[in-house]
Order: sequence, then C-alpha cells, then structure tokens
Amino acid sequence: MRESLLMYIDNSVFLRDDSLVILDRRRFPHEVVPVICCDYEETAKCIEDMVVQGAGDIAITAGYGLYLAARHIEGLGEISIYKAIEYLQRVKRRLVNTRPTGFHTAVLLEHILGKLDWESYSWSEQILEYITEVIRKREIRSELTGKWAETLLQEGDCILTHCFPGPALLHMLKFAIKHNKKIKLIATETRPYLQGARLTAWAASELGVPVTLITDNMAAYCMSQGMIAKVFTAADRIAIDGTAANKIGTFQLALAAKYHNLPFYILGYGGPDKNCPCGKDIPIEMRDPDEVLNFNGIRLSGDKVQGFYPAFDLTPPALVDGVITDRGIIPATEVENYWSLPLKESED
Amino acid sequence: MRESLLMYIDNSVFLRDDSLVILDRRRFPHEVVPVICCDYEETAKCIEDMVVQGAGDIAITAGYGLYLAARHIEGLGEISIYKAIEYLQRVKRRLVNTRPTGFHTAVLLEHILGKLDWESYSWSEQILEYITEVIRKREIRSELTGKWAETLLQEGDCILTHCFPGPALLHMLKFAIKHNKKIKLIATETRPYLQGARLTAWAASELGVPVTLITDNMAAYCMSQGMIAKVFTAADRIAIDGTAANKIGTFQLALAAKYHNLPFYILGYGGPDKNCPCGKDIPIEMRDPDEVLNFNGIRLSGDKVQGFYPAFDLTPPALVDGVITDRGIIPATEVENYWSLPLKESED
Repeated sequence: MRESLLMYIDNSVFLRDDSLVILDRRRFPHEVVPVICCDYEETAKCIEDMVVQGAGDIAITAGYGLYLAARHIEGLGEISIYKAIEYLQRVKRRLVNTRPTGFHTAVLLEHILGKLDWESYSWSEQILEYITEVIRKREIRSELTGKWAETLLQEGDCILTHCFPGPALLHMLKFAIKHNKKIKLIATETRPYLQGARLTAWAASELGVPVTLITDNMAAYCMSQGMIAKVFTAADRIAIDGTAANKIGTFQLALAAKYHNLPFYILGYGGPDKNCPCGKDIPIEMRDPDEVLNFNGIRLSGDKVQGFYPAFDLTPPALVDGVITDRGIIPATEVENYWSLPLKESED
Repeated sequence: MRESLLMYIDNSVFLRDDSLVILDRRRFPHEVVPVICCDYEETAKCIEDMVVQGAGDIAITAGYGLYLAARHIEGLGEISIYKAIEYLQRVKRRLVNTRPTGFHTAVLLEHILGKLDWESYSWSEQILEYITEVIRKREIRSELTGKWAETLLQEGDCILTHCFPGPALLHMLKFAIKHNKKIKLIATETRPYLQGARLTAWAASELGVPVTLITDNMAAYCMSQGMIAKVFTAADRIAIDGTAANKIGTFQLALAAKYHNLPFYILGYGGPDKNCPCGKDIPIEMRDPDEVLNFNGIRLSGDKVQGFYPAFDLTPPALVDGVITDRGIIPATEVENYWSLPLKESED
C-alpha cells in the first residue's frame, strides 16, 4: 500500500472514464481519496480548495479542465470556431484565476490555445495530446533538476526543506541514495496546510531517508545548533530579477539561512517567468482566514480574533545562493540566463 | 463568563481546601478545567505536562508544591529539622528540574528555603506567607513592566507578539487603551502548543484590541508589507550578556525584525538571571517529539518520521533593541545595570 501511495504523489491527477480524477492531497498520507471532476468548473473548484497542490500539478489539472470544457462543446454538436474560441478563452480565465501566484497554469493554457488547429475541430484530442507531452517533459525536467540539485550535496549533509518542493526533491534524494551520500532531511511542518508533514516528510521517509519533522518556528534554532548544512525549497514563480515566490514561510527560512551563512537553494525546474520582470509583479494569493483560525474543524482562538492567510511570500535574490533548473544551477540574480543555457543532462 | 475567564488568565493557580488548583492552560480559552494537585509530585507533573505555563506562573506553582510538601512532613508528627531540610531540598530539586530553561523556579525555591526559620517548625505557614508576598510583588512588577512598555507605543501601532508574554503584555495594552492609542495586535499562533492563538490572541481581543492571528511562518511577510511597527515578546531567562531564552520561534522573529529594521523588545519583568553569565549557560528544554508529530491526537506524518521539539531558543542581544523591566527599559547588552536602577513607577 505504502509504495503505491508514494507512486501516487507523482501521479495524483489523471483521466478515467473521461472524467478527471484527483487524489486529494489534503488527505495524504493517511488516505487515498479520489475526487472526480466532470467539468471545468468542478476542476477549478478543486484547484481553489487545494485538492491538488503545487504549481506544476495545478497547471496540468487546469489543462485537463480545459480538455473537459472542449469535450463539452464538441458534444453540443454544431458550434462555430468563433464561439469555441470565446468559450475556451473564458474557461482559461476561470482556471488561471483560481490560484494567481504560480504562473505555470497561465503559460500552459495560453500555449495550448495558441497552438490549437481550430479548423480541425478535434480540439479536445489536440489538448489531450499536448497535456500528455507536457507531463512527459515535466517528468524529464523534474529528474534533471533533481540531478543538478544532488551535485550540491556532500556525504552526510542534513538538508532543510519547506512545504512540498515537488518531484525534483525526491529525485535529488534518490540520486543521493544511489551515490550512497547518506543524506538526512529536516522538514518544516508548513502551517496551515501541513504539506511538509503530510507530503515531504512522509515521502522522503518512505524513500529510506532519515527524516525529522519540526514546526515552522524551529528552523533558526536548528541552524544555530549546526544541525543543517543546506536549505532547498521550490518556487511557484521566479521573476526575472530573481525574486522567488514560494509557500509562506520560505522568506523567513531564507533570512535565517543568511544569518547562519547556510546556502539557500531554489528548485527552479523550468526557470523563471519570462513575463514577470520583478518580484513586485507577482500577485500573492490571499486565502480564506478561516484556514488559519481553525484546525481540523477546531477553532484555535476566541470569536473576536481575525485571521490572515497570505499563501505565499517573496524571497529576494540576495538571500538565494542558486536557482537549480533542468538546465543547470544559476545565480538568482542571473536567472534570465536560463534560456541561453543548453538543455542537456548533468553527469550521472 | 468571558470576563471571568480573562480574570483567570492572571489567577490560574491557587489553593482551595488545602489542595492546589491549576486551571488547565492547555484548554483555554475554550474551557475552564481545574486540575487538583494534592502533593508536590502531582504539582511537578502538572508543570512538566504544561497544565501551567509561563516562567512566572510555573515558579509560583512550584512554590505551592513546596508548601504541599511542607504540610506533608508537618502532618507526619515528630520530624527532625535535619530530615525536614533534606526532604524539602529533594522536593526543591524535583520541582526545579521540571522545566530547566526558566530560572524563576530555582530562584524562588532557593530564596524560600534560605529564608525559612527552621527552628519554628511552622514551615508551611512561612512558605505560604512568602508565596503570597511574591504574588503581590509580581503583580506590581508586571504592571510596571507593562507601563514602561506602553511608553514605546505610538498611536495606531500594530505590534507583533509570540507565544503568551504574560500579564505585562496585557497591562501594556490596557495602558494603551487608557491613553487612547488604538493599538492593533498580530499574534503568531505559536506551534506546537498554540499559546499565541489560545491565550494571547484571545485575551487581547477580550480587552477590545483588534487582533489578527497568523501562523508562525507568516511574520516576515507581514513585516515586509509594512504591517508591523514593533515586536514584543517575553523571556523565560535573560543571561547577563543579554541573550534571551524564550519560546521557540522568538529567534526567528528577531532575525526577521532586524532585516526589516523593526524594533524588537523583550518584556523582561524582573531583569536577568544574575547567576547566568552567557546565553550558552541557559539549558534549552527538549520536550517529547510526539508533541510535534501529533496534533489533537492526529498523527501528522508517516510512521517512519521522527520529531524534534526544542521548547525554547536563544536570541542574541544584537537582535534585541531593549529589555523592558519593572525598573525601566535597558539596552540588551547592558542588562547587568538592572540592579543599579531605582525601582519606581514610570509616569502614568
């Protein structure tokens, strides 16, 4: 059971019987609960409600939402190309607006709609082909990013991470195991959704990595005690100026790492958002304050207390020692060089 | 009900029918649950299990534990002074070792045993008198500390705090209300025990202060957005070099405050521990990792994941802009001057 559950963490969104199945990330690792989406609106709601999480998985889920919408209009019989474009553009906007901080959804859906051969009328088929290709490329990209990241690890390093940095982190750990580097991991629990506890700590421990869970406020203490060699997080979006938007709390960890002279790396997968010049251009998603005020249905404080829930924060490039991409490791202030790097595998 | 509950936050440990009653801090603000201690061992366990929290309240609770032990040996009939001293010294060690980071318990119990007129044989009576006097002095000390702290507040300030800094914070807010300063409070929830959510946020909101609750990892983001003017926390112990031991997470907040050039103050009540030259002399209590791995009986991660729970951290004096005591506000690097300051009330 455990092993198949670990497999699901990379394959938690898929089509079955022409509906979209999302394995509810909020229930991992305790249960595997499939949520079925029959149309794009249900898909959008699942993204908003964090049934699916992580910028890459969200983008693919949104792609499937667009596919369901295309199936829908194809099923209506005669429809003009003009009306189809209008409809799918509206669907795109709905899906892009679900979670504004990550940029992968907008990029993916704009690519798809820009590339569609509208005259052929086989829109859903083309969308599905495109998504399948994106998933394939993303797997390669994650593995390459993990491979580059692993080159930064020394024998015996204990690394700190935050939230769930996605498959590149697990690839990094797998390569380290292959090279017998004996890496240890400290994972912050990542309040309020506890992705660090539920996903990262669990998944890494299932790989055989010794994992220690801490609360988010313990990281600086662990650094001060020499318990941590390096910090790795992901990013939901990197601006051209090198500012990284990632799960709330990342900025605080980067500050603590800088104070302790510890390297802080961003797993940057496919590089920065070329349409986003500066950190201040990245919208920070504000979520329902009730998600901070309650835990598992239990109210944490008094009735008059308000909550505040910025889901992401911005880490300035001066605090980041390197952005690790599928093309190599780039200084944060030079991320615009990403596109001039050749795409080739690092040495194994 | 609410008002009386707020009253309890300052009076959660008291004698009734010759037993010690502790109102369970872990259940605030949702319930008022009295826990009864009939002997010093039950009292020690309550301290260890965090039924009572905060260095000052813990010390008074331990004092009552010593009282219960003295009552016990008095009830045994004829006992030599030598045996009484030996017994109460053993009780003292048990109570002091419950929670090693705060120093108030050791200071209080050593004072009591040092001052006892052993020849009179009325040990418990003397202990009770001493504790009553300590409680009275502590109330004055808290109010004076709060009064000094309030002089640092400007009209409209939004202050950040962590954990429950004790009665001085509430006094500070009450003085600010009296002076019509319209202060707002942001409270970190303070994992894993959530004292910030359950005690601080609730108590301040009951005073009429607008309170916003955040998770511990959101503080740096709030600072970056200009939402915070000043930071105030307490300390369980301040060394002569100005290092402050306080609830885990304080250090991380101080680092974020320094980066954002925000003043960071310690509510230091009765000043530093004169027997503790340096921060490294302060023992950091390590608590049961299960308290990090589980929340309300729910396991947060996989079975193979370990937990780590340092209950306190150390904030170096370079990150602290002032230690606020009952005698005035002192630079962190000059806390040894505390004893040369006159004890007088600040202007109201």
